[in-house]
Amino acid sequence: MSVSTTEDAIAGQILALERAALDRWGRGDPGGYLEINAPTLSYFDPFQEHRIDGLAALTELYDRFRGKIKVERDEIINSRVQVIGEAAILTFRFVSHGSEGSMRWNCTEVYQNFDGDWKIVHMHWSLPRAAATT
Amino acid sequence: MSVSTTEDAIAGQILALERAALDRWGRGDPGGYLEINAPTLSYFDPFQEHRIDGLAALTELYDRFRGKIKVERDEIINSRVQVIGEAAILTFRFVSHGSEGSMRWNCTEVYQNFDGDWKIVHMHWSLPRAAATT
Repeated sequence: MSVSTTEDAIAGQILALERAALDRWGRGDPGGYLEINAPTLSYFDPFQEHRIDGLAALTELYDRFRGKIKVERDEIINSRVQVIGEAAILTFRFVSHGSEGSMRWNCTEVYQNFDGDWKIVHMHWSLPRAAATT
Repeated sequence: MSVSTTEDAIAGQILALERAALDRWGRGDPGGYLEINAPTLSYFDPFQEHRIDGLAALTELYDRFRGKIKVERDEIINSRVQVIGEAAILTFRFVSHGSEGSMRWNCTEVYQNFDGDWKIVHMHWSLPRAAATT
């Protein structure tokens, strides 16, 4: 396989993992993300005062959302995967409509290949401001 | 060298690159960042409607800030570097005080080692909201 074919295959695999985790999230089940996060992960979202380090801390946070979030519809926009050896950077914009209202996000997920299993080692979700506020 | 010694050395190298780019940024010179960005980079900041892809597009954006930003003082808080082969994920919180007022940021930079030169292949800067808004 050429490099680009391999990269396309990795991109497809990673997007499928992300989509499956998002689908569970939208049904109030954070387990989809927790199951594909590596123990060493680092995590930013706009509502935490500090970076979250480690799966135990993320589990504690995400358990609070269990059963509470309902996403009616959402969309991954303009996804891109950059592969660097055993690391892959997934970036996309995301829109969701549901129990939290309508939200627009910027999202970065860095995956690492552990013996064939891709796991998330870094997540950064953020809320962009309207360009007009610059 | 042990793995952790190597990782510590990489972390030190990457933090020095970031600090140097920030110092130039704070003097109105975006060139520090542009010089260490790889052509393939992906980029999110809260004021762009879309992800920026590629160094040419980032150069166009950053050239608008040339000479216009003055940071009086700033601080990298709680930095962490996760090394995955030729990739390294730098995360930190950042506070700056200057021409744009006082700002707090969450920051992710993914560096890639190109034959010994670490370059940025992904940047994600975001503005956290107060925890009270959750």
